Amino acid sequence: MINIAIIGGGVVGSGVFELLTTNSEIIENKSGKNIVAKWVLDIKKFDPNPYGKALTSNPEDVFGDPDVSIIVETMGGKTAAFEFTKRALSSGRHVVTSNKELVAKHGPELMKLAKANGVHYLFEASVGGGIPIIRPLNHDLAANEILSIIAILNGTTNYILSQMKASGKSFAEALREAKANGYAEADPTADIEGYDSCRKIAILSSIAFGQYVDSDDIYTEGISGVTPEDIQYAQKLNKTIKLVARSKKVSDKIFVRVSPLMIGTDNPLANVEDVFNAILLHGDAVGDTMFYGRGAGKLPTASAVVADIIDIVRHSNKFAVKDWEIPSEGNIVPIEDCEVKMFVRVMCEKLEHGGCEVVCERVEKIFGKVEYINPLWPNEIVFYTGIIKEGDFKKKITEFDLISAIRVHKK
Amino acid sequence: MINIAIIGGGVVGSGVFELLTTNSEIIENKSGKNIVAKWVLDIKKFDPNPYGKALTSNPEDVFGDPDVSIIVETMGGKTAAFEFTKRALSSGRHVVTSNKELVAKHGPELMKLAKANGVHYLFEASVGGGIPIIRPLNHDLAANEILSIIAILNGTTNYILSQMKASGKSFAEALREAKANGYAEADPTADIEGYDSCRKIAILSSIAFGQYVDSDDIYTEGISGVTPEDIQYAQKLNKTIKLVARSKKVSDKIFVRVSPLMIGTDNPLANVEDVFNAILLHGDAVGDTMFYGRGAGKLPTASAVVADIIDIVRHSNKFAVKDWEIPSEGNIVPIEDCEVKMFVRVMCEKLEHGGCEVVCERVEKIFGKVEYINPLWPNEIVFYTGIIKEGDFKKKITEFDLISAIRVHKK
Repeated sequence: MINIAIIGGGVVGSGVFELLTTNSEIIENKSGKNIVAKWVLDIKKFDPNPYGKALTSNPEDVFGDPDVSIIVETMGGKTAAFEFTKRALSSGRHVVTSNKELVAKHGPELMKLAKANGVHYLFEASVGGGIPIIRPLNHDLAANEILSIIAILNGTTNYILSQMKASGKSFAEALREAKANGYAEADPTADIEGYDSCRKIAILSSIAFGQYVDSDDIYTEGISGVTPEDIQYAQKLNKTIKLVARSKKVSDKIFVRVSPLMIGTDNPLANVEDVFNAILLHGDAVGDTMFYGRGAGKLPTASAVVADIIDIVRHSNKFAVKDWEIPSEGNIVPIEDCEVKMFVRVMCEKLEHGGCEVVCERVEKIFGKVEYINPLWPNEIVFYTGIIKEGDFKKKITEFDLISAIRVHKK
Repeated sequence: MINIAIIGGGVVGSGVFELLTTNSEIIENKSGKNIVAKWVLDIKKFDPNPYGKALTSNPEDVFGDPDVSIIVETMGGKTAAFEFTKRALSSGRHVVTSNKELVAKHGPELMKLAKANGVHYLFEASVGGGIPIIRPLNHDLAANEILSIIAILNGTTNYILSQMKASGKSFAEALREAKANGYAEADPTADIEGYDSCRKIAILSSIAFGQYVDSDDIYTEGISGVTPEDIQYAQKLNKTIKLVARSKKVSDKIFVRVSPLMIGTDNPLANVEDVFNAILLHGDAVGDTMFYGRGAGKLPTASAVVADIIDIVRHSNKFAVKDWEIPSEGNIVPIEDCEVKMFVRVMCEKLEHGGCEVVCERVEKIFGKVEYINPLWPNEIVFYTGIIKEGDFKKKITEFDLISAIRVHKK
């Protein structure tokens, strides 16, 4: 029998507790061991208490129990969770987590601590909820050099954009609906501003490229500026707007960014709707391969946590996964130097009394040759830029009365 | 250093040889060992010889070499490959294969033999080419009861159907084009008649449901009967026709079938085009999760083979994967008993002189309430049946002059 403790009895923790019970036979069959949640540590009061006598608010019940060999950290955040994780690893216990914030921030230190103590620190559930992605990257694609990642990593924002597209709703309306349906939190900042996606692409990039990518260094833009009109243009152009986390190796550095992106409807990511997530990887041998599923939720996330637990029970003495090297200097391409193609809408009315023709002349003077798009509304000029550096674009666009600018996916 | 031998120097074998060389550093980094292809066994003459002194036509060079601890079987077929595999396992060597025919036919025996000899028999490359699917099913989704699988498992037929849809080509024309582009073999029977998909769904079902599903027992229908007119109807109905391998648990038996299927354009499989494959699984905890990528080809398939090799090098002494129980009696639902919804086109002209109205009356008399579809061509009646048993449908449809009948996906 393997005894585990769950730290944090919230949504994911309760899913892990439930899954270990309801699928105990399947799990024993796969792991060869009966896995039991002996403790659930939480300071909250539960009424009714779903955990029975497993519930405790005293950490010493967990850390003082020599039977507990695996600790599941599902409390989130990076202060108490960090302390508990360090204590667990230092005491020779494996740790499994769904806490993307902690992994993105302190992953290298915690992985090193795990190794020093001969235990595992696993975090399949930290990216893509139930979608297998961390283990496939580490194992199934181990023969590949990973060249790029393009992914939808946040269900809340994808739901909002899907709703805006389906019904022409504004961002604010779609957000309200997402909240009403339980797909957005009361404070949705981390989702809609892209921070959640940013942490996840930091983790995926660190694995794919074998070096720590610090989420604090990643250029991140959310979806609050996307309008129904932008979405109408995308549809007219056979494209769709998604909040995309993108990263790829560029010589010895890493290009990585989270932002709204116009992608062609023939891109496999274009059809990922509602709360679903998808990660499209390009490996030098395998080519394009995509992983799709529910990126959040109680049982999908628990599915990933329990897969990690089973993996530990099977291979408790194996340490095949490499540390993430911390680079000696910045390893991320500065956003200003990134090449980009932009979809741009500018006003003509306010800027010039000579009307749109004068603005077109100015567009060409400043941006060179551009590809014009027939405007859907009067008094605006719409165009794709050529390939341009982000920094240059930012400077040049100040010359115009900008309505919106959205990056366009180029392969 | 780990020495391996490759049996079969064809497309996949050459890919494995190439990948072990080009990505040797990555592979050593992940596996902790330098992995070298010491032998390539093939009776063919190669001119030029891409394998240098590794090439041999003498099996004793391989089996007499005590340094060879892993054998890669990429020769295909189920006679010589079967003998070589048994000999390899019996001599205490791990075997990795891409040979779906052999795994589907002799998987249980070979897995048992591997276990008895303390070695692995791994076959990630046998399904979905480079797409990680066997290991995710065995490991990443280990906490789930897998409830159903719906998949596009054959690139040749998917390419043909994509071409028919894109350009209105007939099946014969699209097949010719597939051959010209190297996407269909000179004898394409195994692909177009669905046998290849059948073997692959047999393997996936055996893993998912933990019991051997014999490919010989699976109802299999190919795509040679699909017409451009059927495809036009599908488009009109917001559906697409795919060659789909489907399996699910139905009480204590397994429903499994390979056939053309009309699926809604909102189904994630609907957008899988050309030679790509995709496998959509439903697990009780994870919900829907899909794996997408190149289902065939030299380097994608080699990517999966080498992932298995790395797995063995990391975990050579672990045997976590369960055997497939051979059921004491038939475990597959007879096709006649399977419930289905059919899209049906029948002629009216030839059958009755009273014209279409008479046929409609007969349709309703025989099938009960149906859902009519406005015909695209004169002299035909088009409808969806309600849910009906395959056996009943077959009997009832004999009363009509059938143009075509295609199964419709129901959740």
